[in-house]
Amino acid sequence: MTMPLMFDLLGVFFFGVSGSLLAARRGFDIVGSLLLAGLTGIGGGIVRDVILGEVPTAFANPYYFVPPTLAALLVYFVAPGVQRLKRPLLVFDAAGLALFCTSGTVKALELGMNPFAAALLGVTTAVGGGLLRDVVANQTPAIFDPRDMYAVPAMMGAGLIAALWVAGFSGWVWELAVAAIVFTLRVLSLKLRWHVPKAVGPWHREAELN
Amino acid sequence: MTMPLMFDLLGVFFFGVSGSLLAARRGFDIVGSLLLAGLTGIGGGIVRDVILGEVPTAFANPYYFVPPTLAALLVYFVAPGVQRLKRPLLVFDAAGLALFCTSGTVKALELGMNPFAAALLGVTTAVGGGLLRDVVANQTPAIFDPRDMYAVPAMMGAGLIAALWVAGFSGWVWELAVAAIVFTLRVLSLKLRWHVPKAVGPWHREAELN
Amino acid sequence: MTMPLMFDLLGVFFFGVSGSLLAARRGFDIVGSLLLAGLTGIGGGIVRDVILGEVPTAFANPYYFVPPTLAALLVYFVAPGVQRLKRPLLVFDAAGLALFCTSGTVKALELGMNPFAAALLGVTTAVGGGLLRDVVANQTPAIFDPRDMYAVPAMMGAGLIAALWVAGFSGWVWELAVAAIVFTLRVLSLKLRWHVPKAVGPWHREAELN
Repeated sequence: MTMPLMFDLLGVFFFGVSGSLLAARRGFDIVGSLLLAGLTGIGGGIVRDVILGEVPTAFANPYYFVPPTLAALLVYFVAPGVQRLKRPLLVFDAAGLALFCTSGTVKALELGMNPFAAALLGVTTAVGGGLLRDVVANQTPAIFDPRDMYAVPAMMGAGLIAALWVAGFSGWVWELAVAAIVFTLRVLSLKLRWHVPKAVGPWHREAELN
Repeated sequence: MTMPLMFDLLGVFFFGVSGSLLAARRGFDIVGSLLLAGLTGIGGGIVRDVILGEVPTAFANPYYFVPPTLAALLVYFVAPGVQRLKRPLLVFDAAGLALFCTSGTVKALELGMNPFAAALLGVTTAVGGGLLRDVVANQTPAIFDPRDMYAVPAMMGAGLIAALWVAGFSGWVWELAVAAIVFTLRVLSLKLRWHVPKAVGPWHREAELN
Repeated sequence: MTMPLMFDLLGVFFFGVSGSLLAARRGFDIVGSLLLAGLTGIGGGIVRDVILGEVPTAFANPYYFVPPTLAALLVYFVAPGVQRLKRPLLVFDAAGLALFCTSGTVKALELGMNPFAAALLGVTTAVGGGLLRDVVANQTPAIFDPRDMYAVPAMMGAGLIAALWVAGFSGWVWELAVAAIVFTLRVLSLKLRWHVPKAVGPWHREAELN
């Protein structure tokens, strides 16, 4: 196993845990736990690859089935223990976000997409799995919540990778540097409770909207 | 920029505004506003292109990122003003519906799909974005509402384009004529409050269904 | 029409009826009934084919538009009668599940997917349509319900087909045998009220999860 594959599988695992935990909280069965773990872990990459016209990585390589299975088993056996680890889990999730937004953008650029589309596909890779998890579990997507800043670091990272590519800088050193920035921003946003502006400016009252 | 591209971008913009307005009403953040604007504006075309095995138009051409951004900014700055324009917005939305159902059907026919599949993909282009908007925002899709007739004009238009194609008539004159018919039907359906039959015949009582 | 196509269309019809019945119960219009019938009947196969990079079967062959239309018409005219047939419908649905999970796995194997991915795509073909139906109708997917065992027989059948393929056994005799096993398991699970373990082990209390 190569180093990048190891990192990717780790990202899939940490994303997968959030899917299995949601299944646990909602009283779903173990099938739902497995499916939500898989969807959260590899869903973003599947959407990216389908749009790029490639066979999704996760279907080309059976290793990708291991992390969601482990996530579902972990939650089955020690769900409350996993719940109590909420804070470390958020840190690992931030690492997944950072790795997926850079690797997704790079893959799209290498396949010849324009920088805007590549950055969008990088963001899709990073946040698409969590979005699918919430949509399939029939709840309002967490990334729309103004109290948390989840997608913004990924958008910045993907944009930065695309801009560096246009300027002629690419390679794993730049990728790692950008991933480190995304990770730092995400962790800081949690620590300092940064939030995102709402869809309407603060000068509007809610009442005006209905 | 060619004339058809201009029209297409306008359609994306008007569809996008409905996505951003929904984000505003639901209290989502600006990321949700952008994502729902993009999904509503270009989601139908993405589904069509993925099924056709093509790289989605919106990813091949960075211009498509401008209208959803404008829609999100417009709603951020003047949401209540946009809300008050509900009636003119519905007219513009009808124009988008008319253009997307004809252009979507024609694209599928040109790529060699059979007339039934092409018409279905034309309808998908026209109503798919709004459907994705509602599914992702976790609400019952508006196109299922029996009090409004939204998909039917698009189905008629797509079917008409496919029938004309089979009969040997194609070209922008026919497309424009069909689009005008779809637009007129949609606006009339709003003015005259036409509605669609329910999924069960009127001779059944609701109680019998549970 | 070949025999396999006939079976496939029957499966699409029975799945489609469940989509139209849901539209009826939820008070949707006839457009929603048609769309949910189509999505339930052919949605799983579309997702499979999009991931495989093929033009979806249902779009290549106009016959596939007939069963969802018949399902929507049937529910429109005799919905309460259809409701009363709940038990026979579940048996037909089990037949669809059995046929779709074997045919989906075989198609993926023939197109060169690895056995794990092929089995997953077989399960997707079998349960994907029902999942899409529930997601689009904005309700919690039925396959996550621990009181019913729906996906497990399909997972066993798809895994068995893939294992037989690896061991060198393929052909319609094996497919039919596995489909018969899946069908029997599904019908037995209904008769004997088998259920699936929850996402968390029984030694955890619900309270610990929030």
